[in-house]
Amino acid sequence: MEKKDLSTRISLVKPGKVLIRGYDLIKLLDKVSFGDMIYLLFTEKLPKKNEGRMIEAILVCSAEHGLATPSTNVVRSVASCGVPLQASVAAGIISLGDFHGGAIEHCAKMLQENVQLVQEKGVERAASEIVTRYRETRKRIMGYGHGIHQPEDPRKVKLFQLAEQYDVAGDHMRLADALGAAMKNILQKSLPLNVDGAIGAIISDMGIDWRYGKAFFFLGRAAGLTAHAYEYMVKESPMRRVYTWDEVNYVGPEEREISE
Amino acid sequence: MEKKDLSTRISLVKPGKVLIRGYDLIKLLDKVSFGDMIYLLFTEKLPKKNEGRMIEAILVCSAEHGLATPSTNVVRSVASCGVPLQASVAAGIISLGDFHGGAIEHCAKMLQENVQLVQEKGVERAASEIVTRYRETRKRIMGYGHGIHQPEDPRKVKLFQLAEQYDVAGDHMRLADALGAAMKNILQKSLPLNVDGAIGAIISDMGIDWRYGKAFFFLGRAAGLTAHAYEYMVKESPMRRVYTWDEVNYVGPEEREISE
Amino acid sequence: MEKKDLSTRISLVKPGKVLIRGYDLIKLLDKVSFGDMIYLLFTEKLPKKNEGRMIEAILVCSAEHGLATPSTNVVRSVASCGVPLQASVAAGIISLGDFHGGAIEHCAKMLQENVQLVQEKGVERAASEIVTRYRETRKRIMGYGHGIHQPEDPRKVKLFQLAEQYDVAGDHMRLADALGAAMKNILQKSLPLNVDGAIGAIISDMGIDWRYGKAFFFLGRAAGLTAHAYEYMVKESPMRRVYTWDEVNYVGPEEREISE
Amino acid sequence: MEKKDLSTRISLVKPGKVLIRGYDLIKLLDKVSFGDMIYLLFTEKLPKKNEGRMIEAILVCSAEHGLATPSTNVVRSVASCGVPLQASVAAGIISLGDFHGGAIEHCAKMLQENVQLVQEKGVERAASEIVTRYRETRKRIMGYGHGIHQPEDPRKVKLFQLAEQYDVAGDHMRLADALGAAMKNILQKSLPLNVDGAIGAIISDMGIDWRYGKAFFFLGRAAGLTAHAYEYMVKESPMRRVYTWDEVNYVGPEEREISE
Repeated sequence: MEKKDLSTRISLVKPGKVLIRGYDLIKLLDKVSFGDMIYLLFTEKLPKKNEGRMIEAILVCSAEHGLATPSTNVVRSVASCGVPLQASVAAGIISLGDFHGGAIEHCAKMLQENVQLVQEKGVERAASEIVTRYRETRKRIMGYGHGIHQPEDPRKVKLFQLAEQYDVAGDHMRLADALGAAMKNILQKSLPLNVDGAIGAIISDMGIDWRYGKAFFFLGRAAGLTAHAYEYMVKESPMRRVYTWDEVNYVGPEEREISE
Repeated sequence: MEKKDLSTRISLVKPGKVLIRGYDLIKLLDKVSFGDMIYLLFTEKLPKKNEGRMIEAILVCSAEHGLATPSTNVVRSVASCGVPLQASVAAGIISLGDFHGGAIEHCAKMLQENVQLVQEKGVERAASEIVTRYRETRKRIMGYGHGIHQPEDPRKVKLFQLAEQYDVAGDHMRLADALGAAMKNILQKSLPLNVDGAIGAIISDMGIDWRYGKAFFFLGRAAGLTAHAYEYMVKESPMRRVYTWDEVNYVGPEEREISE
Repeated sequence: MEKKDLSTRISLVKPGKVLIRGYDLIKLLDKVSFGDMIYLLFTEKLPKKNEGRMIEAILVCSAEHGLATPSTNVVRSVASCGVPLQASVAAGIISLGDFHGGAIEHCAKMLQENVQLVQEKGVERAASEIVTRYRETRKRIMGYGHGIHQPEDPRKVKLFQLAEQYDVAGDHMRLADALGAAMKNILQKSLPLNVDGAIGAIISDMGIDWRYGKAFFFLGRAAGLTAHAYEYMVKESPMRRVYTWDEVNYVGPEEREISE
Repeated sequence: MEKKDLSTRISLVKPGKVLIRGYDLIKLLDKVSFGDMIYLLFTEKLPKKNEGRMIEAILVCSAEHGLATPSTNVVRSVASCGVPLQASVAAGIISLGDFHGGAIEHCAKMLQENVQLVQEKGVERAASEIVTRYRETRKRIMGYGHGIHQPEDPRKVKLFQLAEQYDVAGDHMRLADALGAAMKNILQKSLPLNVDGAIGAIISDMGIDWRYGKAFFFLGRAAGLTAHAYEYMVKESPMRRVYTWDEVNYVGPEEREISE
């Protein structure tokens, strides 16, 4: 058991030498971008096309989305309590769960499990079948619609343009768009692909396993969360209270006595 | 209090529009690297020189350093227990404390607080004074020496070369090197600047507050930790036990009875 | 949305006064045990019988289980890196996922969803039906069998005895035992109820929602994890390396060059 | 190094047997409270007097303090994002830093480092000296004063009464009270001992190392945080936004163009 546990394909470290997936770290330092490095770490290959540039654009896109998001609220509260920077940011990252960026993973999984239908039946019929199947099993297709950015999420539009320009676009992206159209036809609802769904589709076309999906959000967002932690720490007002005791609306039992 | 708490200089989000430090996120997507974005988020400015490229090199350098580090051990253990990807990686990030990458912050702070001595007295005399002062107060200068990479950490050498090449090198880096030489002279110990100290010096020369220091480690390392979490999750052997019950060396009290 | 978000049934705090579920905290201090308090926080009622004593026994039982568990490995590694006590313990708690104590929740859910069968058909027939149904859908019943404690987990035996003695035992516990017997008959496997399953059954008989299941593990285990963090912190050997670089078994690509 | 790392005085686990600090876990289950167990885990001794009851009272006291605290804000936000229960509670625990319960540790440290003065000079002179010394070095004595509970924190009053009643009170508690009086005399400020300071003093009189201080807060508060996570999870409104995008007050740079 131990032996297996100490086995890794990721890196080799010995005195004076660090190999990452077989490449010398020192040689990588000025040859690859951080996006290339993520692609290498996740797929064991250096990019052949512009996958690294595409990942960089995704990270830039994910880096920050304002103060009114749960993760930012979390980080600012933790940072106000006298906690080291890395622990404050980690608390925010924990919050990036199923309902906060989780659609990347879910959408990528759905696309990767169904993409072969595009070749078999054409993209439109594939999309109709999937939407119908999801409707019948009363499941929701993740990665569509947005609370704030309407009618369309501008980040999705630009990321898809870049994917074309960088020549990484493929069937997953085509299927993702077709699913939005199919939902409009079949469900009579306008739910265009959002930024989460867009990232899920693009990483799928770059051959990245859906299980990595959330990472393309949290690796980028960690930068914005760090800026929020710092902003709060240098303000130096300890114990951030988002609201005060008299704003809380207690709706539990009236005061009562302990019966002996 | 609330009003202040809801104030931020970082970003503005409204329907169809996201501004980061004043710049339209959509326009940034294909114009800046993730390194540029971090520089913008942390300093409120876009790079004038190659600061973004330098940050990218630092992130690549920090991304991974093998299985035998505490944070990797943490991530692989947590990921083996049936925990979402982001929470596994967050647990690893928590461990990047004072003794695991913390030297970046401490070294940057020391350099930023003493760099004016370089102009006043020359770099060698500045370094001698600082080493002498630390010796007298029995404090240790952080960011020097390395457990594995000897005599010199190759990551430090390459990062400093790149900083020269990218034209971001300055007095902090010169002082950092001079401190290593001064320690050799005064303390009779060979403690060359290591990768943590190098990063602390370079970000200082790029005008970045030392309080951000640890971020240049954890924003990069998060990528490597994600690869380790994934590697362990797909192996699917739940409940990783690094050692078995019979390898533990119990040195506590002998079995004893509860006295009534 | 905001209004709802600021509503709570748990507690009311104002100057000089703290009500927990309607009871004055000051009056609770010497009247209730921590087990009673947990019962009150989770169910909005003070115990009528010995539910508080039973919860105390569960917490004592969960508090510690040796150095060779993933969560302990995590806590000792994090604590060695210069991280505050609460953050080290929190990292360990993150690891208490689906495969590390998660069976409490899963077993309690299964019991709560099926317990009405006991009244309808008798406990043995109920158990046979459930085992057969799980076998047909190739799902595993959680909370049975143990890697180390065989043939039977002594913690399960004692907790069930106490539940009888404290008069909190009921149909969930009877069903839980009957399922072990049914698995032996039908699957020809000896998988007696383990400590996780036992806790899941007992809290179900005390009327506690299965969604709280994992808490009966982590609220107790947090005490043991704290002792491990402390033990490591006072040893003062920074950067715990469970294994050294030369013990790692690199099985990835051979050293290779970056093709331009 | 490995050997040392695998040594522990806390527990021994082997098939069918669990010893905690030398005591058989099965025998402990109905003999000790969770408070006794914490005392055993932290000090290697079972209580001789009422230390376990005192710890239970401290845990009850710490368990919950309303919705308007940073840690509760954190837990409710994380729990709204589709994150497992233990990870939501862990994020809240991370926030229990230097400014949120941290005074327990700081106050206990100060008392343990100065308590010998009580025997040497009497409690009043000891207190005067300490206050004067802190004033001269411009440091603040932690654990005094409270934002909401004034003039006196009722939790402190009751905990001190119980400590007398349970016969665990001693010089640390006397010194803690005398310091409040001395601050009033010397600094002309009314800063009575608060609940954090009270806990710090009581655990010191029970012989517990100040490094454990924060644990007496987070082991209790974890129960309240769990109730908040649950309350939010069953409400099922994903992505809790404490405020909306149009409530955020952006004070950063005006919209600007990227200069090429």
